[in-house]
Amino acid sequence: MARPTPLSGFPEWLPADRIVETHILDSVRRTFELHGFTGIETRAVEPLDQLLRKGETSKEVYVLRRLQAEEETNVSAADKAGLGLHFDLTVPFARYVLENAGHLAFPFKRYQIQKVWRGERPQDGRFREFTQADIDVVGAGELPYHFEVEVPLVMAAALAELQAIGVPEVRILVNNRKVAEGFYRGLGLDAVDDVLRIIDKLDKVGPVKVAAALVAEVGATSDQADACLELASISGADASVIDRVRALAATRAITSALLDEGLAELGALMEAAAVRAPGVVHADLKIARGLDYYTGSVYETVLVGHEELGSICSGGRYDTLASDGANTYPGVGLSIGISRLVSRLLSAGLVKASRSVPSAVVVAVTAEETRPASDAVATALRARGIPVEVAPSAAKFGKQIKYADKRGVPFVWFPAGLNADGEPVAHQVKDIRTGAQAEADPAAWEPPAADWWPSVARVQQPTD
Amino acid sequence: MARPTPLSGFPEWLPADRIVETHILDSVRRTFELHGFTGIETRAVEPLDQLLRKGETSKEVYVLRRLQAEEETNVSAADKAGLGLHFDLTVPFARYVLENAGHLAFPFKRYQIQKVWRGERPQDGRFREFTQADIDVVGAGELPYHFEVEVPLVMAAALAELQAIGVPEVRILVNNRKVAEGFYRGLGLDAVDDVLRIIDKLDKVGPVKVAAALVAEVGATSDQADACLELASISGADASVIDRVRALAATRAITSALLDEGLAELGALMEAAAVRAPGVVHADLKIARGLDYYTGSVYETVLVGHEELGSICSGGRYDTLASDGANTYPGVGLSIGISRLVSRLLSAGLVKASRSVPSAVVVAVTAEETRPASDAVATALRARGIPVEVAPSAAKFGKQIKYADKRGVPFVWFPAGLNADGEPVAHQVKDIRTGAQAEADPAAWEPPAADWWPSVARVQQPTD
Repeated sequence: MARPTPLSGFPEWLPADRIVETHILDSVRRTFELHGFTGIETRAVEPLDQLLRKGETSKEVYVLRRLQAEEETNVSAADKAGLGLHFDLTVPFARYVLENAGHLAFPFKRYQIQKVWRGERPQDGRFREFTQADIDVVGAGELPYHFEVEVPLVMAAALAELQAIGVPEVRILVNNRKVAEGFYRGLGLDAVDDVLRIIDKLDKVGPVKVAAALVAEVGATSDQADACLELASISGADASVIDRVRALAATRAITSALLDEGLAELGALMEAAAVRAPGVVHADLKIARGLDYYTGSVYETVLVGHEELGSICSGGRYDTLASDGANTYPGVGLSIGISRLVSRLLSAGLVKASRSVPSAVVVAVTAEETRPASDAVATALRARGIPVEVAPSAAKFGKQIKYADKRGVPFVWFPAGLNADGEPVAHQVKDIRTGAQAEADPAAWEPPAADWWPSVARVQQPTD
Repeated sequence: MARPTPLSGFPEWLPADRIVETHILDSVRRTFELHGFTGIETRAVEPLDQLLRKGETSKEVYVLRRLQAEEETNVSAADKAGLGLHFDLTVPFARYVLENAGHLAFPFKRYQIQKVWRGERPQDGRFREFTQADIDVVGAGELPYHFEVEVPLVMAAALAELQAIGVPEVRILVNNRKVAEGFYRGLGLDAVDDVLRIIDKLDKVGPVKVAAALVAEVGATSDQADACLELASISGADASVIDRVRALAATRAITSALLDEGLAELGALMEAAAVRAPGVVHADLKIARGLDYYTGSVYETVLVGHEELGSICSGGRYDTLASDGANTYPGVGLSIGISRLVSRLLSAGLVKASRSVPSAVVVAVTAEETRPASDAVATALRARGIPVEVAPSAAKFGKQIKYADKRGVPFVWFPAGLNADGEPVAHQVKDIRTGAQAEADPAAWEPPAADWWPSVARVQQPTD
């Protein structure tokens, strides 16, 4: 077999980089659990007809076929209907909620950390296989607004926790569909979805083209188009944003109960965010999010200093996550693009693991005959939760130290025994970074807390 | 959307059951890391030609196709070659080792916990999508025998750790291909792979049919067939097994250096196991494992009392995990069938989570206007690592207690404030299991350690 080459769009990490990713996954999971979100996993596949309900994603789906399927005489209904790999965690979650509604307690708060697949052309920050970390709260019949405040603040906490390891600050940009819809309708523009779709392109194509599109595609007057652009230009980190929208609406003589409701909601979010995540949440009235199922708050998140990467955490409120006729399940959720985040942290050299293996200690082996003595030391250390491995061969100690050094393992343990002259020697442990060596008791010795497990930390920049 | 029904062969768990699975995954991962194994993940897909190198698995592969692939003019080489979902973690690991050999330190000890997919007919304990937890040690050019001792002992430690939560004891059955091959060749039977394949069916078809097959298919005399069955009948938990094989070989006048080497290896494994995992490892000379790439130790593992479930943890030594012409990479590994194990634990009602959410505390909300006060209590508790959620609505306290009770959350917190008569009341926390209620300080109170996180434990049986 020749040396294989990577598959474009399917990222894989070397061990030390995987330690970075695992640390991030463990950290966000812990934050989710501290906020009472329970973990679920769904299967990787869904019936194709479910995956294709949103037309715009149909191009991205990977369809499955059993290699020998044509030979089967007894094909199950599911195989016949066709299965595809899920392209997000929202569609499977909606199906899981419907399938298990009788066994779930609502409102149901869940997190879900899994791979998803999209057959799109790979490019920077866009993969064909990637990991998402989602949280959603879903209600049966109703879902109070305060969850639209809670969910981005949980994500703010999860992302703030990662700053300790060198992840840049984030800015969570929020808007509210009710504000946009109330404003557009108040202006006399009723093709709300079309206006949102056009405004969504503002950052890409600029205000002149957006105005032209509003005139050409939704029949806006140039004055109406200007008003839409003015609304989209409003942003800020405090509740004064609300006043500015109100003032703009007043100049256009817009009165709209929906606008008022949306502004009250957005104001409540800004107020709570100012207390619980100061400086992180910014209202940004141009945030539209393409998907037409959002009905209230919408969220995007940028890494400060890496805005061109696009949003690393997006979502919103949807009044109908799922519906089975008898019940409707509204929800609100956000999804972190873990692979996009990790890929940037690694490629920009921002974050690094202290070693490429879990081991804090390599126990040296004096001779193959005394390997059981080295194993016994390792067992004693592991009993206190210290990650340890035993050297692979009874090579010269210098070579065994090199084995540890190559992996970044900080300590090498030399077991008690007889030295070359037949004299008894005690257990010794060496910090191979400093060369310091001391006698130690396998039943009592512990590494410093900072060396216990691999640490993941900010890479010191030359300018630091 | 009508209520969806489960897809056969694609298991999913309700939240409390997923807590059981997560606990098991966390536990085995910790054991692997305590032994110095480093985690990697590989992509879910491999080029089809790589997946189909082992003919016998070709029926089980799920092939991927991009839904719109036929419309593409610019199809990448990988898309043209065809991609399939991996059916185990060994094939992808071998590819990862070859692809990254220049960046890995050998011997390389890795664990890998991921989903795999097989398009086979679902049945009890056999799924189309399931989670495996693998450990392997791979060397560059060489791999000392002692790793064949270490790897099953790491698995013994991982599975022993799970007994605390009610997982039954396991028995790890070991054999050595060198013993079998040396014995068969010494007998005059050179079609070793065929003999192994026939012996592998012993438990299924019984000794009479195996003997007949040995005579019919490999041309054995009935005396040779008897000798093979005699070897296969030897098993035991200590090194005396080795003596019994030697005695059997002596009665047949077999002398074989390969047999001697295999017996020395098997003996070393039994000896180390007697010290490090007493009673767990049994030599069982009928263990053959179907796959012909094993070259030394082979392992299977049964849950005591659930032997009919089949092996929950299997593997072995292979001299050529991968080869790129310049280098050969021998390895030894074992794989736990996590889904098979978890599915049995749940369906047999052996193990249970104490609650269906992470939260140890639900903070009650007195009125929607005072929700920020409840949020502040939750934030104070979370700062000490206590999982907390805030009640979804300012319903009557009885209803809020019911919200907690329904999810198994042990504590409800009543925030300080004014009571209905306008008199100040202090923070109080109630253990809803006992009804005990006491004043508490959000900056200091902690739940008992046993209530902090959901616990996963053995279900008490009526006979206990």
